[in-house]
Parts: sequence; C-alpha cells; structure tokens
Amino acid sequence: MPELRKDPVVGRWVIMATERAKRPSDFAKEREPHKGGPCVFCAGHEADTPPEVLAYRQHGSLPNQPGWRVRAVPNKFPALRIEGQLGKRGAGLYDLMNGIGAHEVVIETPEHDRWMADMEPAEIEEVLWAYRDRVLDLARDDRFRYVIIFKNHGAEAGASLEHPHSQLIALPILPLNVQQELRGTSGYFTLKERCIFCDIVVQESEDRRRVVYENERYIAVCPFAARFPYEIVIIPKGHGSHFEYSEAADYHELAHALKATLGALRNALNDPPFNYIIHSAPLREPPSKHYHWHLEITPALTKVAGFEVGTGFYINPVPPENAAEQLRAAVGAAQAVAEMAQAS
Amino acid sequence: MPELRKDPVVGRWVIMATERAKRPSDFAKEREPHKGGPCVFCAGHEADTPPEVLAYRQHGSLPNQPGWRVRAVPNKFPALRIEGQLGKRGAGLYDLMNGIGAHEVVIETPEHDRWMADMEPAEIEEVLWAYRDRVLDLARDDRFRYVIIFKNHGAEAGASLEHPHSQLIALPILPLNVQQELRGTSGYFTLKERCIFCDIVVQESEDRRRVVYENERYIAVCPFAARFPYEIVIIPKGHGSHFEYSEAADYHELAHALKATLGALRNALNDPPFNYIIHSAPLREPPSKHYHWHLEITPALTKVAGFEVGTGFYINPVPPENAAEQLRAAVGAAQAVAEMAQAS
Repeated sequence: MPELRKDPVVGRWVIMATERAKRPSDFAKEREPHKGGPCVFCAGHEADTPPEVLAYRQHGSLPNQPGWRVRAVPNKFPALRIEGQLGKRGAGLYDLMNGIGAHEVVIETPEHDRWMADMEPAEIEEVLWAYRDRVLDLARDDRFRYVIIFKNHGAEAGASLEHPHSQLIALPILPLNVQQELRGTSGYFTLKERCIFCDIVVQESEDRRRVVYENERYIAVCPFAARFPYEIVIIPKGHGSHFEYSEAADYHELAHALKATLGALRNALNDPPFNYIIHSAPLREPPSKHYHWHLEITPALTKVAGFEVGTGFYINPVPPENAAEQLRAAVGAAQAVAEMAQAS
Repeated sequence: MPELRKDPVVGRWVIMATERAKRPSDFAKEREPHKGGPCVFCAGHEADTPPEVLAYRQHGSLPNQPGWRVRAVPNKFPALRIEGQLGKRGAGLYDLMNGIGAHEVVIETPEHDRWMADMEPAEIEEVLWAYRDRVLDLARDDRFRYVIIFKNHGAEAGASLEHPHSQLIALPILPLNVQQELRGTSGYFTLKERCIFCDIVVQESEDRRRVVYENERYIAVCPFAARFPYEIVIIPKGHGSHFEYSEAADYHELAHALKATLGALRNALNDPPFNYIIHSAPLREPPSKHYHWHLEITPALTKVAGFEVGTGFYINPVPPENAAEQLRAAVGAAQAVAEMAQAS
C-alpha cells in the first residue's frame, strides 16, 4: 500500500511508493515514449486498458468496444489505491495515511494523432464534460477531498504515452498549491470583500497587454508574475469556485478558449511540450465567494531544476507582455485561416 | 532593468527579464555545457571573469591572478542588478519593484575536474567560509532581505558550466518557500514552544531508519516526506537560525558531512546531477528560536514537470527508508576505503 506523508514544516503531502520501489539502476535512462500508433489508447485496443468508467459512445456500440468518442479508464499503474481505509495516523511528530485515491486516464479521442489543438471545439467540449462527470462521480466518495485534473503533452512535459489523454487524481488531502491559493484568495476577500480573480479579470480586460484570447465567458492571459515563458491562465469571467459546478455554456466556451490558446502555443512555439492543470475548490464544498477556478497552461521550454523547486523562486526570461503579444498574433492568424477556409 | 513581480494570490516573487527577452527560436535547443577544461573559472583565466569580490589566496599572490584556492566573482550574466533604488510600486492590484539584487559565483577550486566529493574536508570548509563571508558582506546592504546559496551539479540540474562552483543570489524579497518555512516553524513553536527541526533531530536520531550520516554537529537524513528519490537534508544538531552566524567548528563539521553525503550520492547513483540549497533565516534578523537553518540536497533523477510545479504535490517512487539504507552503505564503504588507505 503506498503512503501519503506530510512534510511537517510546510504541510506538503507526498505520495510515497512503498512497494516495488525503484532501484538506483532504474534511473539510468528514462524511457522514451513509444512513437506512432496504434497504441493501447487507440480504437480497437479497448481490451488492453482496464475496463472503462465512462465513455461517450455512438448509439448501439458496446462498452469496452470501438464506437466511443471520449473514454475514461483507471490508470493501469495507479499512484494510489481505491480500496481501503484512510488509516490516518501519526509517527512521532509526522503525519501519514494510507495511499488511498483514484488515478484515471481520460482518452480524449480514438485517434492517435489528433491533438487537442486539432480537434473541433465540440470534441474538446466532450473532454471537458468527461472531466466534470468523473469529478462528480469521484466526489460521491467522501474519503476524497480533491481531484487534480491535468494534461501532460510531450515527453518533456512528462507524457509517457503519445496518444492524447488527460489524467485525474482523486486525493484524500489538499495539494500544497491549493492550500496556498485558498489562503491567498481568502485573505484578499477578508481585506477587500471582493474575489481577487474577479479583480484580475477586470484589470486585465482593461489593460489588454497580457490578453491572449477572449470570448463571451473566458479571458486567457499571460499572468503578471508568470513563472515560465509563455505561461497562460484561462479565467472564467463570471465568478465560480468549482469547475464541476459550471453551466453547459461554460464548457462550450471553454472548449473554444482551449482550442485557440493551445493552437496559438503550437503555432508560435513549434508544438512545445506543455502541462495544463485545472485549479478548482475542494470537492463538495458549497460555492465559495473568494475562490475562483481557473486553468493554468505551462509550456515546458526551460528546465525546471532544484533551484526553482527548492526556493519557489523563478527567473522568467520572457516578459508576459511580449509572450501575450506573440500568442495573440498566433490566435489571430489561425482565426484568419479558419475564416478563409469557411468562406471558400 | 529587470523587474521583481509578485503573484497576487500566493505571494510568489518572480524575476522578470525585461531587456534582451528571449524569443521563441531561442528555446529550440538548450545549449549543452562545454565539456572539459580549461574554462573561464580555471586558474590562469582570471581575466575572463568580472573582478573578484573575495579570494582565499597564497601569501604574496595578487588579486585576479593565480594563487587562489576559492574565489568569488559577480555573475557575468546577472539575473539582477546591484545599482539603483528598489522603487517599490503598485500596478493596479499587482506589486512590483526594480530587479535590484546581487548574483555572484563562488568558484570552489582552481581545478576544473575537482568535484566537491573529491575535495579534502579542509577545502570544502573554505567554500563554506566563502559563503559566510559573502553573505555577511551582502547583508550590510539593507536593500537585501535574503541570500539564496545554492549549487547546481551537472547539466540536468541546471549547471551551465562544468567547473565546480556555487551561486549566491541576494534578494530584496523572501522566496516563497522561505515564507512557507517561517510560517510552519513559527506555528509549531506557538503550539509546542519547541523548534520543529530540533524535534526532528531527536526523532530521527532515535529512529535511525532515515539517517544517512551523522557526526558531532550534524545529522544527514532522507526526509520523512521526501519529494525526490534520494533527497537528503543536513540539519545542525544544535539550534541555530542563520547559517552565517555559525561557529568555526560548525563549518569544519559541515565540510565532513557534505563530503560524506555527496560522496555517497555519487557512489550509490553513478554521479547523479543534483542541487543543494542552504535554507537560512532572513538577513540581519536576530537569532530566531523557531527557525533552524539546514541544507537540502535534491538529486535530479526524475523529470520535474508542470504537474509537480503546478500542484506542489509529488510522487516519490523511492521510500526515504530505502534510499537512506543504500546511501548509508555507500558512506560506510567510502570510509572503509579511506581508513584502509590511511593504514597502508
């Protein structure tokens, strides 16, 4: 059984593998992901994954058979176990519990090479619905306090399989950055009686210099204090604390925002590796006035070394104003091409 | 002038380059560091660095000439500027200031290939004295609140030059992780009226499972909630908040602890890339009862991707008990070899 252990000084939880621990020789070379399809996530290979927990399918198609558009399955090598009790306990001054949790994969498309920036907005929207449906299902298990929803694109960003997919990790604890964001947004609300993200939306909308893309319900900006070159955050314009409590129109518009920003990243930077992570309020909590969910996209253009991790201090060689200008141009160019294609 | 910008939600400061910003094409390939000497840090090439701010030299040798054992120089491509006013200001809801700071390099040896694990303890001790002397000198500038002392070893850990060196970055702000540690240690002290690190020293000394090395004044352990495989923290057994307020015997014993642990890492893991960072209390503050300085060593065996950075949540495939057992054996083997060499 893996363990969840808490750093006693800063309150950071870590999943600690306790079985099949890696040995020194295992780190000699990290395996390059298999290139080219078909793979276990491709249509027709459904038997090679654990049985699906969700699929949006053609009428008449059967579970764990082709005919799906989006499919969620448990991770074959999960970092956490779904069965068992939390067993919260102390060990002297330390705190730990059993590594209970869920680790799932959302396979975004049956096609091996159909990356998110190439998908139609309606296809991306279904991926977002899959996130929502899985979060709401996992939230019924009251051992879980949080679900991290994230996507790794490219080997350098940690993707071990090429086929477009996202991951969900359901946890009995709050990740450190969620704790920090809750503390920060709550402190601002106490002081100002306003949500800080709502204020950021107003200021960035007026300022324009860091705006990458905007539609009716979202604004995508390069953050004022971006840690990484070309970092982007997509923020809902209306206040909402939980991704999974959004309205249908929210997922519709978010799909357009994701397609535009990921397409701009790809075109401006030659398909860089990237991660995105949805930051949302803890599961089952009532809607919060101070927390405002958002989606962070971090291209992996520079090496993150122990210095950044050890200090929480970053050096960013590209000001977000410059990055946004280039990304804005890339969004515009893509839209112009799409409009020409539509007109012809 | 670079800027220091603060994330308004979590309080994280970032150095933002505003001149000579990198363009997308600059990220295409990261340069591999030059292999083999001699280089600009080697003896005889003193004119290729900015003039030294410190050197421990042979009697009779001249500044910026050979004859030094340890030498500190300003970084030729500093992330921050030493001249100017902080100019703290707001921009709507954001906070920023001018990128004032110091960025220095400590060249640990005149020899290109003499890595720290190969040095005699007396040589390492001089590197530690150089850290101390530079911190005390930089602390006289009351624009600075903190000095980060760190070492990158190996290209994968961010070292852009092979020649053994460390870096110091003097900052007008506190890095996020220092803020977190101060909050955590202060909270524990309020509750228990004891220093948490002093308690950790007692518990780990009794438990032994995570101990890598111990001498009269230090204990080196793999932390209970280690983020990374083979992560090590060297903790002074006696309470002290500031690295730079240590006694002579502290530097002497720390040199032995560093040689033993870095040697064990190298032998057990085939010279892995690593970073170390000294965590110390803010400059010029009176000795603190709750903060306890320490040195964190993080081998770069696994890729750190956006997931870890975005969530502050880590998955460690090697339990610290297993890591410590292997490292302890490597320390023992090295000591046995040294004793045999001495006996013969």
